[in-house]
Amino acid sequence: MKTQNYAIIDIGSNTMRLVIYEKTKSNRLKEIENVKASSRLRTFLEEDNTLNQAGIDRLIDTLKSFQEVLATYTLQDTICAATAAIRQAVNKKEIETQIVQKTGLNIRILSEEEEAYYGYLAVVHSTSLKEGITVDIGGGSTEVTYFENRELKDSHSFPFGALTLKDFFKKSIPTTEELTTLRQYLREQFATLPWLKDREVKLVAIGGSARNLAQIHQNLESYPLAGLHEYQMFQKDIIEVSSYLTSLKPSKLAKVEGLSKDRADIIIPAIEVFHCLYQTIQAESLILSRKGLRDGVLYEHLAKESDSSLYPNVLEESIQELVNDYDLDRKHIRHVQNLTEQVFDFCKENGLIQLDKQDRKLLKMASFLFNLGEYIDSESSPQHTFYLLANRTIDGLEHRERVKLALVASFKNKTVFNQFIQPYKSWFLKDERRKLLELGSLLKFTYCLDATRRQIVDRIDFKLKKKNILIRVYTKANAMPEEYQAEKQKKHLEKAIGKDVELEFIADSQM
Amino acid sequence: MKTQNYAIIDIGSNTMRLVIYEKTKSNRLKEIENVKASSRLRTFLEEDNTLNQAGIDRLIDTLKSFQEVLATYTLQDTICAATAAIRQAVNKKEIETQIVQKTGLNIRILSEEEEAYYGYLAVVHSTSLKEGITVDIGGGSTEVTYFENRELKDSHSFPFGALTLKDFFKKSIPTTEELTTLRQYLREQFATLPWLKDREVKLVAIGGSARNLAQIHQNLESYPLAGLHEYQMFQKDIIEVSSYLTSLKPSKLAKVEGLSKDRADIIIPAIEVFHCLYQTIQAESLILSRKGLRDGVLYEHLAKESDSSLYPNVLEESIQELVNDYDLDRKHIRHVQNLTEQVFDFCKENGLIQLDKQDRKLLKMASFLFNLGEYIDSESSPQHTFYLLANRTIDGLEHRERVKLALVASFKNKTVFNQFIQPYKSWFLKDERRKLLELGSLLKFTYCLDATRRQIVDRIDFKLKKKNILIRVYTKANAMPEEYQAEKQKKHLEKAIGKDVELEFIADSQM
Repeated sequence: MKTQNYAIIDIGSNTMRLVIYEKTKSNRLKEIENVKASSRLRTFLEEDNTLNQAGIDRLIDTLKSFQEVLATYTLQDTICAATAAIRQAVNKKEIETQIVQKTGLNIRILSEEEEAYYGYLAVVHSTSLKEGITVDIGGGSTEVTYFENRELKDSHSFPFGALTLKDFFKKSIPTTEELTTLRQYLREQFATLPWLKDREVKLVAIGGSARNLAQIHQNLESYPLAGLHEYQMFQKDIIEVSSYLTSLKPSKLAKVEGLSKDRADIIIPAIEVFHCLYQTIQAESLILSRKGLRDGVLYEHLAKESDSSLYPNVLEESIQELVNDYDLDRKHIRHVQNLTEQVFDFCKENGLIQLDKQDRKLLKMASFLFNLGEYIDSESSPQHTFYLLANRTIDGLEHRERVKLALVASFKNKTVFNQFIQPYKSWFLKDERRKLLELGSLLKFTYCLDATRRQIVDRIDFKLKKKNILIRVYTKANAMPEEYQAEKQKKHLEKAIGKDVELEFIADSQM
Repeated sequence: MKTQNYAIIDIGSNTMRLVIYEKTKSNRLKEIENVKASSRLRTFLEEDNTLNQAGIDRLIDTLKSFQEVLATYTLQDTICAATAAIRQAVNKKEIETQIVQKTGLNIRILSEEEEAYYGYLAVVHSTSLKEGITVDIGGGSTEVTYFENRELKDSHSFPFGALTLKDFFKKSIPTTEELTTLRQYLREQFATLPWLKDREVKLVAIGGSARNLAQIHQNLESYPLAGLHEYQMFQKDIIEVSSYLTSLKPSKLAKVEGLSKDRADIIIPAIEVFHCLYQTIQAESLILSRKGLRDGVLYEHLAKESDSSLYPNVLEESIQELVNDYDLDRKHIRHVQNLTEQVFDFCKENGLIQLDKQDRKLLKMASFLFNLGEYIDSESSPQHTFYLLANRTIDGLEHRERVKLALVASFKNKTVFNQFIQPYKSWFLKDERRKLLELGSLLKFTYCLDATRRQIVDRIDFKLKKKNILIRVYTKANAMPEEYQAEKQKKHLEKAIGKDVELEFIADSQM
């Protein structure tokens, strides 16, 4: 099958962007090109909301330069979507006509409802959140939605965005009075939507301003993980960034780590929007979504094309993507999962380890990905496994969950575990850390039982003795390598369950 | 093309191992299976050097269990090689006959010369060293070779190995007298080969004992990098490990981090061999080679099969492997290399950066691999690039060189550079660090000139003005994305050369 490429051009009030996605063999959308142009179309809007000819020319020039990039790819589809800057222009028909004439491109001018809907769609396609409020601050509009059970319940588009809100300030750094006025205005605006008030759900922030907020915070905190998607912040974190930025001299603002130059003048009003909305809904926390409008448009397009669900099981699909991308052996995985279940049940039933549903889920997920770092280098594969899982975006997993998965799937021994967990120690209680160690030990042991990946173990049974546990391993044939490995690694399991383990390997011929 | 798999069974005195390699599309040999069995055949040698029937049975049982693993693969070839344990047995004909009868496997009993030769071959195939002395400590023999201009000059096999040398000690931890006697013996042995004395070259250590020595040292030092291949140690490091191990209680020895259980009793005599040899040759340093006998045998086999050189340009091939494995765009690379050369020459000729041959080489290598971490995730790709290049084995590069390559190829900005270099700061002088920063800045800039990977830039020229430098970029067509990126990133170049840069983009139509 040939790879399929899709292009999306996104015409925003502040930025225009061309993104080309490749649909990989595992149906993942991989960005292979991302070209940004700072258009600031909004500044070409006349007082009567006409986009003047200079603005139209700029828009068309940018589209033309994007087309030259497009020409170097074989594309399945090209979608060109425009938001508030064009939608709000009174001469939008004229703009459309000029664009078609001069570039041949058909643009879709998204309605307010559509713009909000695609943001929501991107979120349910790239996170596991069941309920939440999304917010996407554009240059000239701000979309909010509320979803429950992953379904869209309410949505609204406010006619203000980061670019228009900066008019509340005379200079790039606002005075206290200016800030107060802006906050007052925002609070009133949000109060017009009763479904926002005291929702007590997560606030999911979409778009460039949100990304910049998260990046600045990660830099301030020397955050040890890579990746922004599903990064979590609390009110105190938003206040920290806001106080930091408003305390700077104007000349220092553009140099803040994590802040893109062309957002320096709009980041402060944007943060106020997040903060006021956070307070209005009494949010549990703010979660960043790296996927937004563009992705939502594409998801819908692909779902139509392939007749697939608009509400996928995101996490499950992410795990399957990893299995594909890192060439993992599915037979081996299923076999290890089966053995792991048996050991898990035995330990749980006999109270050897305190285990619950969540542990079972985590263990299952980790058993899909155990030792996937081998793909990079067979040397130091536990370290590569930990690095990849902790630092790669896994749609549907928040960062803390990613680290848990990484710790269990990379388990080698206690020392290495402690090394890996070191920078994240404060993220987990002592009991949680011990649990992760135990789950890793258990998985490492069952993994050894298929050391040669030929599913030689037929079944296992357990006998709880006074002083130890006898595990009988019935194999289809001589399983010397498995026995060697299991004997060597059983010490981790012994520590986890606090009992000695006696192994007895029984080959078919002896049965 | 179907993938080709090769199996090697290595019958040593201490360990038997089955390794299955896959020859990847980039001709790299990737270990896909590695099964170890602790055979200790040596312990079945009678006083008259007959391997007794219990030993032969053990050998055959292990081979049979290996065969069951072999049966699950489609193999191009299976090579079964035996070393000292069989070579030194007086009944080796009988052993061979029994193996053929009971397993159908033909074993190659390597001569002393062959054993030494294959160790040497592995080293010149996986490092860039021009000259050195290799040492491979087996259970029952120790091979040393000297090579110069990558050609084998001398070789010898001593009839002692880690297993036989431990007879110098009564218990696992030797007394001071026992150590002195052992050292005396080793010094005398090495003195019989005049070509060892005061060679003042690098000592390349091969085999399991060497790997364990390096692992223990890495653990003691909390070494920040992954990977053993081409790890470097000095005399003080060997002494550090040796003093640490001999100071332990016997019960603690087996629990030392980095030491495999089944080597606990032979690691101390093995380290003495490395140390005495280090002193005899007045080594520059000890370099670990993870590639050894098995790999040498396979390299020869493959070279015969494909009629290729036995003395490849290791580093160049490693870089090409990476280009293949991480799906990098060769046209884009060549274009960026060309632009980089031009900027490099201009900076060098005008003394803007102090640049030499080594810098050019490093920059060229980095330009092959710039931003390869995109393969993992387009988010945080600089971090992924740095991680991969610093922590993955790159045959032909010592660790310090690997880190230099990683820093230049992952360059994003000064802050991120400083973050990445932090754990390795002491490895480089201040001037070296600045140079790496400058090279990264330069490469980042030329990379932007092909932001859309369509080789739009036709040529560039430079004008050194009083206050700044004018770079004129002539493009085949409108190059808006390149211009946008280059304007954004030129600040790094400006800092590197200490002058402002003025960019002028001139499209074909304007020419």
